[in-house]
Amino acid sequence: MRDVIVIGKGPAGITAAVYMKRAGLDVMVVGKGYGALEKSEKIENYYGFENPISGTELIEKGINQAKNLGIEVLADEVIGISQNDGFAVKATTETYKSKALLLATGKTRTTVNIKGFEKLKGKGISFCAVCDGFFYRDKKLAVIGNGEYAAEELSELLRHTKDITLFTNGLPLKTRNIPSNITIVYEPVSEILGEDSVTGIISDGKQYDIDGIFVAIGTASAIDFAIKMGVILDGTDIKVDNNYMTNIEGLYAAGDAIGGFLQISKAVSDGAHASKSIIKNLKHNESKELIKEE
Amino acid sequence: MRDVIVIGKGPAGITAAVYMKRAGLDVMVVGKGYGALEKSEKIENYYGFENPISGTELIEKGINQAKNLGIEVLADEVIGISQNDGFAVKATTETYKSKALLLATGKTRTTVNIKGFEKLKGKGISFCAVCDGFFYRDKKLAVIGNGEYAAEELSELLRHTKDITLFTNGLPLKTRNIPSNITIVYEPVSEILGEDSVTGIISDGKQYDIDGIFVAIGTASAIDFAIKMGVILDGTDIKVDNNYMTNIEGLYAAGDAIGGFLQISKAVSDGAHASKSIIKNLKHNESKELIKEE
Repeated sequence: MRDVIVIGKGPAGITAAVYMKRAGLDVMVVGKGYGALEKSEKIENYYGFENPISGTELIEKGINQAKNLGIEVLADEVIGISQNDGFAVKATTETYKSKALLLATGKTRTTVNIKGFEKLKGKGISFCAVCDGFFYRDKKLAVIGNGEYAAEELSELLRHTKDITLFTNGLPLKTRNIPSNITIVYEPVSEILGEDSVTGIISDGKQYDIDGIFVAIGTASAIDFAIKMGVILDGTDIKVDNNYMTNIEGLYAAGDAIGGFLQISKAVSDGAHASKSIIKNLKHNESKELIKEE
Repeated sequence: MRDVIVIGKGPAGITAAVYMKRAGLDVMVVGKGYGALEKSEKIENYYGFENPISGTELIEKGINQAKNLGIEVLADEVIGISQNDGFAVKATTETYKSKALLLATGKTRTTVNIKGFEKLKGKGISFCAVCDGFFYRDKKLAVIGNGEYAAEELSELLRHTKDITLFTNGLPLKTRNIPSNITIVYEPVSEILGEDSVTGIISDGKQYDIDGIFVAIGTASAIDFAIKMGVILDGTDIKVDNNYMTNIEGLYAAGDAIGGFLQISKAVSDGAHASKSIIKNLKHNESKELIKEE
């Protein structure tokens, strides 16, 4: 079991990892995309760069910085997290375990531009199979998505019902892990039907009777994971205390995911502060264990 | 009158200046030394640098970053600050005026390794001529220092007494602004005498009768200025509110000067946050002025 896994390889995650590695902790960073910075072509206001730098370039420099210090930075998608004597982080290739976990995956929250979506969000449209799948026993479900995250949600929902249709919403399928008994609709979803709750989906002019929709587009965000683990949110921000810890012992969050000023400057500061708490906490627990063992 | 003057050209000061310049404010940065970072040979934990960078190199990159955005970065020593319809920042060459002022000069606080110093600090040993000069009317005073800051303190003290000796404490004089009627002792100060309060100084085996000592070694720090302006401190940290403003309207502080985690990551975050408040404040006041003018 590692000491810490950091999910997210942007400014907050890498900064925290660097501090923790230097403090002697066994730390791994895992993440897929480059987050919000990927879209920044020209960053002028992050201290220390004489000339503007692109977000992609900065993220890559950060990853190399971590690797140069001997930190393992895994380019993989996290598709699930669970807690049970530490944390288990399920990536597409393997499941990794750690004593503490830092969510630093930025603020991207899946939104969907489909007619009826805003109206029915929370009324039959869910973002969390683990949280809400139970309410749809033997109902007709739709999953909107096309990648590993969607596959993960599907396999969770299959525990509750067999009648599930996957809508890729016009995108190509990016996973081979869709169970064979699932119907896949590749055409764009044009409308979600329903008055007080979801009753159907229209795609390519055809109407599908649906009782519930699970959105799992793209890569899961920190908030998706947080919701699944019962983390308390403040609006769309993960709520942390002064030590950057969520309401779950050992689960920390930093960077855009916790809200505030969405700037690299603030993210690196978050990362440094969160690492300080994690280091203190793990070293403290270590000494407690040592005492117990005596 | 400029919008903002930033004192200090380290991570906090430059970051704030960059944000403010990009927000359209007329901002100038002034500072002499490179602060605590000057001593860092190898920085590994500041995000975005693949390979370790020296403090000097980082500071220089920051200064160039600011200059590339058209910010005036003045390499001059600030020897005094006053408030009167905005702020007046007295550098060795000129006095500059601004609506708002940001103190970002790090945490260096002058300490003196002289026998008797710790015992008599605050009991006849002062750090602020403007604050305490008044109490020494026609007394025998000593100033310990050798640069512009010492010269500034001397000229302030001359308003209260003519009997002042300058002790350079073994260092060469680094200013031509010492009034000609001042006695200068170049030998190291070996002891400060006194029981309940300062009574004398021993230097090179000779004893000098002294009623009060003003320490003005090296360059004045943010805290030196803060004390002079009546800024509330929290120990050795400048106390700021959530908007990074001190108890004086328009006077802000950021970086190591306000305490907390003394790291570059935190300093750049401070700088970004302080700039946000200053921008908001100045733009708000601007619109109030516009309304008044109508």
